[in-house]
Amino acid sequence: MVRSLPRLIRLGRQVDPIIIGALSKGSSRRFSSLLSYHFKVGGKRVRATMVILSSLACGGSLEESLKPAAVVEMIHNYSLVMDDIIDHAKLRRGQPTIRVRAGESIALLIAMHYREVIDDIINECKGSDEVRQVAVNTMKEIIDGERLDLLFEQAGRKDPYLVTNRTTVPSILLYLEMIGKKTAALFRASSEIGALTAGASRRATAGFRNYGWNAGLAFQVMDDVLDIFGNATGKQSAKDIIEHKMGNVAVLMALKFLPTKDRVELQHILQAKRVSPKLAEKARRIIGKTPAETASREVAQGFLEKAKAQLIAFGDSQYARGLGELAEEFVKRTY
Amino acid sequence: MVRSLPRLIRLGRQVDPIIIGALSKGSSRRFSSLLSYHFKVGGKRVRATMVILSSLACGGSLEESLKPAAVVEMIHNYSLVMDDIIDHAKLRRGQPTIRVRAGESIALLIAMHYREVIDDIINECKGSDEVRQVAVNTMKEIIDGERLDLLFEQAGRKDPYLVTNRTTVPSILLYLEMIGKKTAALFRASSEIGALTAGASRRATAGFRNYGWNAGLAFQVMDDVLDIFGNATGKQSAKDIIEHKMGNVAVLMALKFLPTKDRVELQHILQAKRVSPKLAEKARRIIGKTPAETASREVAQGFLEKAKAQLIAFGDSQYARGLGELAEEFVKRTY
Repeated sequence: MVRSLPRLIRLGRQVDPIIIGALSKGSSRRFSSLLSYHFKVGGKRVRATMVILSSLACGGSLEESLKPAAVVEMIHNYSLVMDDIIDHAKLRRGQPTIRVRAGESIALLIAMHYREVIDDIINECKGSDEVRQVAVNTMKEIIDGERLDLLFEQAGRKDPYLVTNRTTVPSILLYLEMIGKKTAALFRASSEIGALTAGASRRATAGFRNYGWNAGLAFQVMDDVLDIFGNATGKQSAKDIIEHKMGNVAVLMALKFLPTKDRVELQHILQAKRVSPKLAEKARRIIGKTPAETASREVAQGFLEKAKAQLIAFGDSQYARGLGELAEEFVKRTY
Repeated sequence: MVRSLPRLIRLGRQVDPIIIGALSKGSSRRFSSLLSYHFKVGGKRVRATMVILSSLACGGSLEESLKPAAVVEMIHNYSLVMDDIIDHAKLRRGQPTIRVRAGESIALLIAMHYREVIDDIINECKGSDEVRQVAVNTMKEIIDGERLDLLFEQAGRKDPYLVTNRTTVPSILLYLEMIGKKTAALFRASSEIGALTAGASRRATAGFRNYGWNAGLAFQVMDDVLDIFGNATGKQSAKDIIEHKMGNVAVLMALKFLPTKDRVELQHILQAKRVSPKLAEKARRIIGKTPAETASREVAQGFLEKAKAQLIAFGDSQYARGLGELAEEFVKRTY
């Protein structure tokens, strides 16, 4: 990790007091510490940083960018708490998830409360109607992206809808639609909301949207690469394989490159009733025989270049440079 | 059931095309039939009816009342789908719940999508800012009411938050807070939204709010009474007891009336690891020894009188009369 990330993240962390304040407003004492728990255990606030930098790059003030940034960060965490429920996740940011800490039912109620708090913070934004429209459309996309992600699972869940509609034919196009909705849409919303609350022109706002979209695609592609090939931080390795997910760029690339025998074996592992760590390691070895890692990193690099190309039009301000560095970090990271 | 209910419900059913249309907007084909499933299996739309009648009673048009009515009905069903997830419910309106039909994860995504569609329909309402404010505040109350309801459970769930904070001392006051938030708040929102979108005065709107609030309290108290004493329709009897719930008016009344020995026995049943139908029947017999049923029905009747008293100020229009009849139905019903 290069040196600029901690500096960039400090920007994003400024939304925390806004979020904590909004969460505790009107909630009972013996509940409000639980409501803010999820935010207090960490998080990098890269989306908030993107809103703030986009706003500043468009001539907005730091002050006015913080509430829009808090909106985006709340949306992200709303979706995380719901995802952890869906995935029965035990750990998040190295700490017990809210569903482990508070329990499943209460975690669901907390996430629902987050959704209402998003609306409260939107009301305090300049240009709140526009912010709301972007926020609502983005949340719909995130929800649909999660559905597509679940459909990419090759075994595991018994949900009748998933069993019937499962995606069985590998498709990079469908994968891009899925990560676009699941991940890139919120990055696009980040740069768009930053620009529009700063009063940027329609043309400039469109440029920022494109920046965020491509940076978001780069982010998710790298997430997938690191899931399969990165094990620097001792994080559970090949989690996607263990969770039967074909919707990972490296898996899809490998399926494209592999000879029939290996491809069938990889598919069988993804379809196994239970993928043991040993089986996941075997899948990693099969994928490792192909140029999937290099090819996937190139895909991420391609989206990064597209993201950076959007910034050229906005000159060489320190904020536009900051956005470029932020997107670079998405691809350089090793965690 | 008296004759006026079917007529009143026909009013509320007019929101269905609005809801079905809003749900399918922009969602993929192989998903939209699942999105509307929950609405197509039934429901009485009494909240929508309340919005429409309140609007008409304030001089609003039927046309303009339908979208606000659809908002309230969507909020109700959003909370139902989430509740069914929390309670692992198998049946709703005599049909498999959406979590059974589609699966748990997909049901959660569907409910999240409902929440965004609520915002879409709000945007189409006259006075959308006011409608949104009432809607958001009401959803927060419903969420907190569900939390209080869970805290009234005496055993069962392992959620750490519930185990630590469980309500163990019976309290009618806390019960009223719980049902106020869980149920009456949305009825209050129904009559309030009806009045304010019809352009009613502040004073009139306050009167309608009070009507809805008291009608809602009457509704929930009767729900509780019927859970314990009503078995006309072959519905699972004493479901609240089986679910360890002390937050039922008849249970709380019985605890007040019972001699120590019986009271302790009833409490032990609620705390049992598993409440068998036989054990639930025993609890019903213990409660039946007390005047709990009569006392609870009197509580519901008291709220009904308060609700009807609010309507006097609004003259003897057919719509105000309709609201009176609607609230009466809440107390008369046997299902």
